[in-house]
Amino acid sequence: MLTLVIGNKNFSSWSLRPWLVLKQLGEPFAEKHIHLYSPDSKQQLLAANPAGKVPVLFDGLLRVHDSLAICEYLAELFPAARLWPQERADRAEARAISAEMHSGFTALRSEMPMNASLRTLLQPSADCAADIARITTIWRQLRQRFVADGDFLFGHFGIVDAMFAPVVLRFVSYGVTLDPVSQAYADSLLSLPAMQQWLDEAELEQAATDA
Amino acid sequence: MLTLVIGNKNFSSWSLRPWLVLKQLGEPFAEKHIHLYSPDSKQQLLAANPAGKVPVLFDGLLRVHDSLAICEYLAELFPAARLWPQERADRAEARAISAEMHSGFTALRSEMPMNASLRTLLQPSADCAADIARITTIWRQLRQRFVADGDFLFGHFGIVDAMFAPVVLRFVSYGVTLDPVSQAYADSLLSLPAMQQWLDEAELEQAATDA
Repeated sequence: MLTLVIGNKNFSSWSLRPWLVLKQLGEPFAEKHIHLYSPDSKQQLLAANPAGKVPVLFDGLLRVHDSLAICEYLAELFPAARLWPQERADRAEARAISAEMHSGFTALRSEMPMNASLRTLLQPSADCAADIARITTIWRQLRQRFVADGDFLFGHFGIVDAMFAPVVLRFVSYGVTLDPVSQAYADSLLSLPAMQQWLDEAELEQAATDA
Repeated sequence: MLTLVIGNKNFSSWSLRPWLVLKQLGEPFAEKHIHLYSPDSKQQLLAANPAGKVPVLFDGLLRVHDSLAICEYLAELFPAARLWPQERADRAEARAISAEMHSGFTALRSEMPMNASLRTLLQPSADCAADIARITTIWRQLRQRFVADGDFLFGHFGIVDAMFAPVVLRFVSYGVTLDPVSQAYADSLLSLPAMQQWLDEAELEQAATDA
């Protein structure tokens, strides 16, 4: 059985991505949690993998780190799930957008860190607003093209949607107002039972930490 | 024919990666250059692609942005070149390390920005030294495992080597002393004719800019 090592559900945006993909696959997997803000966090992270980060996937003796690399591995393991679009050109586009999310949007990521249970109102800086505008432009354009194929960016749920799942939680936490098409897409992600499960567990975990 | 849009060869570490992969493929491709430090750079970058960044690959009407996504696309287009390792477990590991490079090593990247023609001596901070230690540990472990298969990380030249090519140039520019195994690997990359071509062109370009 696969084992996914993740951080705090309330905070670890990187962890959410492969977790959501695994849940959407419907494959059984074990979860191992590392608390990211305890005195021995760094030690635990380094014990889980030499990159010292979560998430990490274990498949028997194989250890795969990094959210995007784990998703690529799952796409190879479960080809029937079509985690990348089937058309080569669409797949290239989905990977480009996923990679852009993987290394970019630094203003959004630093100004609006994922904090799933938080509800506040934040006026974004110009850089952060530009990140939000770029993201919602991607969403609107893709939803327009694939509206007939399903509720996700390329119709069918895939890795690219998992890459944006933490962004959707940030928009909720910081009260970002969206255009109707982007809001409908965000709602499609939010209404996934797996996303609701993550949010419930994030809240319980946070309540336990705060207690 | 494929067209690759890149930034200044002296500075654009992201551009070097897919350029080197294309050169190693031996496929003819057109190069388009955007000067990254001119008044209209931003405008030109946004005209090349809505993410506003280089590199961008054009294949007919298809536009693929992001260095890693371009490399994935090339791996699909040219399967015989084995740009990812052929064994699934090795491929997962190569992708994990490539993704770690894609989004991480921020201390190294900010402290030792790529500047191909620069030669100086820099005492790295503790964070930067940790990045260097992690990178050279990866190199030593992989070179030990694949020593019989060739001179690159998984033996055969691949995307993972292209991901580290800018790091090798940084080590040269900032006078980073390496252990013998890491130095031998760095030398394998540096002695590729394509890398020498990039360095020559970076120097010419920089001389023209400074003139």
